[in-house]
Amino acid sequence: MNPKRCAACKYLRRRCPKDCIFSPYFPPNDPQKFAWIHRIYGAGNVSKMLQQLPDQTRAEAAESLCFEAKCRVDDPVYGCVGIIHFLQTQIQQTQNQLAKTQAEIAVAQTKLSQTHNSDFM
Amino acid sequence: MNPKRCAACKYLRRRCPKDCIFSPYFPPNDPQKFAWIHRIYGAGNVSKMLQQLPDQTRAEAAESLCFEAKCRVDDPVYGCVGIIHFLQTQIQQTQNQLAKTQAEIAVAQTKLSQTHNSDFM
Repeated sequence: MNPKRCAACKYLRRRCPKDCIFSPYFPPNDPQKFAWIHRIYGAGNVSKMLQQLPDQTRAEAAESLCFEAKCRVDDPVYGCVGIIHFLQTQIQQTQNQLAKTQAEIAVAQTKLSQTHNSDFM
Repeated sequence: MNPKRCAACKYLRRRCPKDCIFSPYFPPNDPQKFAWIHRIYGAGNVSKMLQQLPDQTRAEAAESLCFEAKCRVDDPVYGCVGIIHFLQTQIQQTQNQLAKTQAEIAVAQTKLSQTHNSDFM
């Protein structure tokens, strides 16, 4: 066994080739990432997706695929769409709070200008 | 050919069995949804994921899987993680705007109370 096999080849119990598509993104010290990816997409699909991308974008693609796979393992019904819904709710709440605060400032400014005006009467 | 085959069985060029796992969530009039799912996850993985879920959650799971697959087709590097980043940026911006507005209201209220105090001097 080659102790330098990447996490993917180790998981797939295969020799890690020199030009392994997974090797740069799945180091042997972090086996869990590939386990998520494999469970949700399957190794073949991930290999195909990475191969279709230019080299310089593959690391980010591997990261985002891992993130989505982990979300789907944690939440098999909603996956990371659950996070999107949560964030949309949070934006709505913050926007409501902002509108309320802006209304309050308008009231305070009106009062301020009325007080100023009454000073001159 | 059975014209009532679901979109998945039509795509996979197979007979649509009575207990088809895909049939309730992939009606024949919307073939694109299954095409995305198949391209990103593969039919076998989706079938496995749906089978592992209780019946009443499968429709939502199929929807969220379609959404994620569509996002990945549209953005092969970031998928729907790109949306999450965008929403997080939006929350940060709205929270900054809220903090700024709250600071403004504090200034306005201080001015207002100073004006009131000076009325009694």
